[in-house]
Amino acid sequence: MNSQTTPAEIPAETPTATPGQSPAEVTTNTPNPHKPLGIVPLATVPLRDIRIDDPWFNRYIRLVNEVILPYQWAALNDAVPDAEPSHAVHNMRIAAGLEKGDYRGPVFQDSDAMKWLEAVGYSLAVTPNPELEAQADSLIELIAQAQQPDGYFNSYFTVVAPQARWKNLTDAHELYVAGHLIEAAIAYHEGTGKRRLLDVAIRFADLIDRVFGPAPGQLRGYPGHQEIELALVKLWRTTGERRYLNLARFFIDERGREPNYFDAEKAAPDWYELYPGTRRSPTVTSTLQAHLPVREQHTAVGHAVRATYMYAAMADIAAADGDTELLAAAKRLWQDIAERQMYITGGIGQSGHLECFTTAWDLPNDANYSETCASIGLALFSRRLGNIERDSRYHDVVERALFNGIVSGLQLDGRRFFYVNPMSVWPANCLPHTMRRHVKPERQPWFGCACCPPNIARTLAGLGEYLYGVDHDTGRIYIHQLIGNRATIRLKTHSVELGLRAALCEHGRVTLHAASPEPIALAIRIPGWADSCTLASPRQNGYLLLDLAAGRHQLDFEFPLPPELVLPHPEVRALQGRYAVMRGPLVYCLEEVDNGPGLEALRVDDAAFLGNFACETTTPDRSPACLTVDDPVLGRYTRIRLPGWRAEAAPDTPLYRPLRSSTETAAERYRPTDTWWVPYALWCHRDPGEMLVWIRE
Amino acid sequence: MNSQTTPAEIPAETPTATPGQSPAEVTTNTPNPHKPLGIVPLATVPLRDIRIDDPWFNRYIRLVNEVILPYQWAALNDAVPDAEPSHAVHNMRIAAGLEKGDYRGPVFQDSDAMKWLEAVGYSLAVTPNPELEAQADSLIELIAQAQQPDGYFNSYFTVVAPQARWKNLTDAHELYVAGHLIEAAIAYHEGTGKRRLLDVAIRFADLIDRVFGPAPGQLRGYPGHQEIELALVKLWRTTGERRYLNLARFFIDERGREPNYFDAEKAAPDWYELYPGTRRSPTVTSTLQAHLPVREQHTAVGHAVRATYMYAAMADIAAADGDTELLAAAKRLWQDIAERQMYITGGIGQSGHLECFTTAWDLPNDANYSETCASIGLALFSRRLGNIERDSRYHDVVERALFNGIVSGLQLDGRRFFYVNPMSVWPANCLPHTMRRHVKPERQPWFGCACCPPNIARTLAGLGEYLYGVDHDTGRIYIHQLIGNRATIRLKTHSVELGLRAALCEHGRVTLHAASPEPIALAIRIPGWADSCTLASPRQNGYLLLDLAAGRHQLDFEFPLPPELVLPHPEVRALQGRYAVMRGPLVYCLEEVDNGPGLEALRVDDAAFLGNFACETTTPDRSPACLTVDDPVLGRYTRIRLPGWRAEAAPDTPLYRPLRSSTETAAERYRPTDTWWVPYALWCHRDPGEMLVWIRE
Repeated sequence: MNSQTTPAEIPAETPTATPGQSPAEVTTNTPNPHKPLGIVPLATVPLRDIRIDDPWFNRYIRLVNEVILPYQWAALNDAVPDAEPSHAVHNMRIAAGLEKGDYRGPVFQDSDAMKWLEAVGYSLAVTPNPELEAQADSLIELIAQAQQPDGYFNSYFTVVAPQARWKNLTDAHELYVAGHLIEAAIAYHEGTGKRRLLDVAIRFADLIDRVFGPAPGQLRGYPGHQEIELALVKLWRTTGERRYLNLARFFIDERGREPNYFDAEKAAPDWYELYPGTRRSPTVTSTLQAHLPVREQHTAVGHAVRATYMYAAMADIAAADGDTELLAAAKRLWQDIAERQMYITGGIGQSGHLECFTTAWDLPNDANYSETCASIGLALFSRRLGNIERDSRYHDVVERALFNGIVSGLQLDGRRFFYVNPMSVWPANCLPHTMRRHVKPERQPWFGCACCPPNIARTLAGLGEYLYGVDHDTGRIYIHQLIGNRATIRLKTHSVELGLRAALCEHGRVTLHAASPEPIALAIRIPGWADSCTLASPRQNGYLLLDLAAGRHQLDFEFPLPPELVLPHPEVRALQGRYAVMRGPLVYCLEEVDNGPGLEALRVDDAAFLGNFACETTTPDRSPACLTVDDPVLGRYTRIRLPGWRAEAAPDTPLYRPLRSSTETAAERYRPTDTWWVPYALWCHRDPGEMLVWIRE
Repeated sequence: MNSQTTPAEIPAETPTATPGQSPAEVTTNTPNPHKPLGIVPLATVPLRDIRIDDPWFNRYIRLVNEVILPYQWAALNDAVPDAEPSHAVHNMRIAAGLEKGDYRGPVFQDSDAMKWLEAVGYSLAVTPNPELEAQADSLIELIAQAQQPDGYFNSYFTVVAPQARWKNLTDAHELYVAGHLIEAAIAYHEGTGKRRLLDVAIRFADLIDRVFGPAPGQLRGYPGHQEIELALVKLWRTTGERRYLNLARFFIDERGREPNYFDAEKAAPDWYELYPGTRRSPTVTSTLQAHLPVREQHTAVGHAVRATYMYAAMADIAAADGDTELLAAAKRLWQDIAERQMYITGGIGQSGHLECFTTAWDLPNDANYSETCASIGLALFSRRLGNIERDSRYHDVVERALFNGIVSGLQLDGRRFFYVNPMSVWPANCLPHTMRRHVKPERQPWFGCACCPPNIARTLAGLGEYLYGVDHDTGRIYIHQLIGNRATIRLKTHSVELGLRAALCEHGRVTLHAASPEPIALAIRIPGWADSCTLASPRQNGYLLLDLAAGRHQLDFEFPLPPELVLPHPEVRALQGRYAVMRGPLVYCLEEVDNGPGLEALRVDDAAFLGNFACETTTPDRSPACLTVDDPVLGRYTRIRLPGWRAEAAPDTPLYRPLRSSTETAAERYRPTDTWWVPYALWCHRDPGEMLVWIRE
């Protein structure tokens, strides 16, 4: 967005955009019932002020702009030959009265268009693209036409079941779609200054605010799939209207109270049965995080995407209102995820059934779900807590997800996607009717239920939001992510120009340029994987604090980046006796194409690893090595070679055999071999085959 | 059965019972289209001629007679307070017109009563019990009353949907129930000489023979759940009526032909939709082994119980007709199971979804199904091939299942049962809506779908059938199982009295008494686990051949029985880097009650194991030891102590941590500990908790 296009009647960015003023201090429609937190969350830097230039993310962002957004535009318009049709635009055209026909696709199909528009908004904030903007404008026009006179928008209900609005919050995703509409509208407004979609969103939000609430005649319901809560917080920030924040809080506080709303609506005679048989089967309220009031929830349960979207909103609302109880609940849930239920890639949602969390320490490798969208949700949630707490560990989790579990979902041609991101794949056993039926050994084209591709697109297009946090009170600029970029940080009285050169996918050397007419206060996150830093500087909550004089500076420092063997906590049953290989933020994996089939038969030599690591060199012997290569398929990346062994057995070896003598001990059964490792995010770009993250000790 | 009660009009036992005559040679109604196999299958010894006396099985057989049969009688009559009602007798009373009411329970509920009657028949063959016989007679009378005038028997269809007979072979289990009715009738006839139920079965079989077949007007269908095929072979043997064998062959040969019968019946307008929604969803024919003609099937797929029951019938029919092609198919499928898809306990059916096989080498530990009934099916199948092939490896698999995967299903009080027999259990994660939703951390009372309990009962009551095979041509007696017993083996011209003292659950010492007026030819199976034997004697196909003079003999010999660490084939991904512990036929496991929680954090010291095993002693140091103990709960059993280590970490250890220096290598992270092992079959009789079969190297 160019600032001169901002309409005067809308606050320039959010109430917080006025430097030094936090949301909690903004004059709101109703008084704040809570005490302030004592700290003000760090502010996010607008996307328009950041240009990312990082070897790991450049190509992903280029993919978003050059391939994914055009491809998804085609997909939304059912113009991708080899993919299941989306029907999204088709459905909206019927809802708008422009076409006759039947609604097709999942009930929440509108949301794909919204996520696409959100991504377009972020993209246009940085990279003007008239053709893309014209496409988006045409879609927005269609959405506006499909909006009903009272402000309601939902193609499914408008076309299929207008009488059944709000009759099945459990399954029907109306509020979920509304949330994505609001987020898209704000992004597009910020990216282009255009408020056509924002007006649509506001009209719909106003309708929702009339329909839902504690007053007589209002519904005391809340969404089956959370998302609108965090969108309403954004809408409050964009418009300054406190009632949107109140509505978000209503949805959060109402959730899980007894009598349970989902049970009650299902028992009502006008329940709208979207899926046959659902009336008879009781709703598993924990899947929807509605089993308890959210403040009483201690462990992350249920559908991981719904959970993290809700937790993110809890953090937002807690920050907005200084609600320490809600913040404590959010932090507790984050801790349960990040310390006990998170894969090393930032994947979450262990169960392949309903894409759910299970329990602490349960991290099965080969049947997990770890949906790409859930990692996105975890990043959204973690960033918010990190900006409240000013603690690097939250951004460590963001980094883990961004470099691994999120981009792993995306093929390097931008046309195929993983929904499920397992730690181990054995293609021959990704079979229907098994516990691995959801695991795909190769990325798939745009799915019928295509939540992940547009979610990846909006995340990468909005990546800049993850980079900085600004303390407008003190003027300190927090560098959360060591992702190369140039940025203008607008403080109360002046701006700071920053340039960060980093390439964590290759090495740990960082160059920071900073220029300002005033003294510069910086906080640079020390990544959780970093054992040391060449920059000597005071530390606070995982940040290096730097105070520089006014003027221009160049700082060169390094976080040494050797490959690491990573150990799991002893409580993690599935990972005992195994190592993962990481280098900096990148999780590595073994692939069949490099190591042959039977990856589970490999072991790594940890003594050699610790004793003799020769980084950045090729060595003639079997010592470990890092090799940065330019690969025709994978591009420039660093591969790792580690010495190890492979279990071997004679051709007639039976299924089970006794260990009969000491000649059959490990030394006899294993032959030395090299193991070759590539970044997890890059797996499955060459010959498809087995993949493994955790190798045996 | 007392032989004097055998009615004259029925062949005394089977056509094969005439010594020296094989089924293929028996005069049959139609000529045999196949060449003979060249060998005649070994004959089974009638149960009435065998008295089992073995420390491992005595208590299970006592349980069957004293607890399970009375308990299951109560269960069938809905008289067990803490269990789901069976409704089985209730349903039959309605079908017989003796009661009004609704059919309740699964569609195949009759079969539980049939399996109970079969077990009663086996039990009465050995142990007279007038009260039990009176209960059985009353049930048989009820079955006879519920039989329809044309011979049809099935409570569900008689009560609920008389118009829908044979309209849904895919789901409705009519032929499955018929098979169990036939098996029960034969067992009860052999056990008591009474033919009331046999007449019912014959009338029903005759109806089925009119309804199904290749002639115009007949149905070319076959059962959705195989079972009747092997029952019809038995009925042929009992009655000498070749058409029952032909009907069995028809079901086998018709199966999997195109156009697929299951697809066709579902497409028919008179399809009977037993489960809502099934008409719309295509039948997965491979689940029912109907994806290919059986002779073209190369890998074991689909529901493991259905599969093994069918494969057993294939072996029977191949033997009866000298059908080498069918035998080759059966052997191929057995090999695929026993060499690539079988758990170390004899459990089969890896997938928790639909209780199915998956693929070669896929043996996940913690989410497997390994239904007790499937191990029973594997034993049925293996015994048949073993009797055809005279090869010990088939009976090795029988032994594996009998000592482990079958009896593990049974609680030592006879009142609770495992359906699912995993290799690893972590109770906190046996949660609904996860891949382990089918895994129960404790045995359950009689289930609503109660296939396993009566199947265990009939198997243990009929255990004698697994012990011997007789070559009536040569007079050689094959001792398949080293299970203590006394037996009278009736050969063509004389009988041989055998007495086998064995206690493989404790030691490998065997004493064999043999007495005969003629020279005695024996073949004693060398168990697959036996490294050596103190008996020097020629060997053939895994048997020791012994030729003794006429008279009385006592042979004392030993198969040394040290504990073994067992290695998996390198292709088995899930088991790499792990050992199982076995001693003789018994698989051992770790339990939380003996080893504390977190069993996956344990490792075993294989060097100590191989170097210094002190069997049958308690040693003061950390050397391995076997200790035979009398436990108040588990009874007399041998526990094993092995030195090992446990992974430990400080309380604040993060979920993932780098291995930073050599002080963090194994020696530092593991503390020495003893690991305590109990037989797998006995697990979950003390405090419930974690269980693990495969420990890390």
